[in-house]
Amino acid sequence: MDLLKERIMRDGQHLGNGILKVDSFVNHQVDPLLMDACGREFARRFAQVEATKVLTAEISGIAPALTTALHLGIPVVYARKTKPITMPDQVFLTLAPSHTKGRMVELIVSPEYLASGERVLIIDDFLASGATILGLVRLAQAAGASIVGIGALIEKTFEGGRAALAPVGVPIESLAAISAMEGDTITFAN
Amino acid sequence: MDLLKERIMRDGQHLGNGILKVDSFVNHQVDPLLMDACGREFARRFAQVEATKVLTAEISGIAPALTTALHLGIPVVYARKTKPITMPDQVFLTLAPSHTKGRMVELIVSPEYLASGERVLIIDDFLASGATILGLVRLAQAAGASIVGIGALIEKTFEGGRAALAPVGVPIESLAAISAMEGDTITFAN
Repeated sequence: MDLLKERIMRDGQHLGNGILKVDSFVNHQVDPLLMDACGREFARRFAQVEATKVLTAEISGIAPALTTALHLGIPVVYARKTKPITMPDQVFLTLAPSHTKGRMVELIVSPEYLASGERVLIIDDFLASGATILGLVRLAQAAGASIVGIGALIEKTFEGGRAALAPVGVPIESLAAISAMEGDTITFAN
Repeated sequence: MDLLKERIMRDGQHLGNGILKVDSFVNHQVDPLLMDACGREFARRFAQVEATKVLTAEISGIAPALTTALHLGIPVVYARKTKPITMPDQVFLTLAPSHTKGRMVELIVSPEYLASGERVLIIDDFLASGATILGLVRLAQAAGASIVGIGALIEKTFEGGRAALAPVGVPIESLAAISAMEGDTITFAN
């Protein structure tokens, strides 16, 4: 998706060690018009999978997942990393490594909002190693839901996430696939 | 705003101790069409304040702040509760009590995205005691920005937040103001 790639070229910063800083339009400051365009594009690419719910992980998945859900006209659930007092005692919980926090985090979904029979579209900001998204896959499977698609704004193809997610057997879409980052040079796949 | 009040009447749950559970459409599962309508309404109510940026706190402020920013056509910044590795060492940081976590949390904004001269509209999911929003006010003031308005989806008028925020001297708008919760009965102000 050219709009996102151009923004990454202009405002993304390679901090070294495979870390791409997109804090000015995705992760801390958010460009809502760009997120809306990305949500519209995900809705177009996943129009045929008949999703009934979008699933993401707090925090930075919320913006693209919300705009995707808006364009599909279905609810979005964001997995919590701490269990709020409003959540029932019995929950779906899994552990996933956090790339930016350098430790394992919990991903928690209430059974109230993820049920058997749901058709789940997973949307996140990054597809890197795939570990967070695999955590969301496990939560959906624990709920007896079907996973029907996986979308990420930005894929780092050199971290192997697409191969890790292949066994899920669903379409995987990224809007900007980065094949290499060297110094200030960001190279897109294809 | 009738749409939000009706949804609270239908799906909100009073859990006791002044806690209103809205996890099925705001805080865990999000109804994107409702959030979009709320964002449009905030944009209408704050059309005259000439905001240049929306400011909120992760996590549950993100959805209404994003849709408000979308309808105003300006960026949104969400204060982080933990400092990610992509953030510079020098940040704006304040402490605020978390109602749902029962402890103090940090609210952190990078000086990269909140600058002197900005006109900041603060949007959050709840206005209860006002403590989180006052934390956002302090962050904006530390940056040398002006606060031009404060909006919350749901106000609990019996927790005194509006009085606590009065010294800020800006318009305060809530889309659903709850004056009392007794058992299963939720009473709206006016």
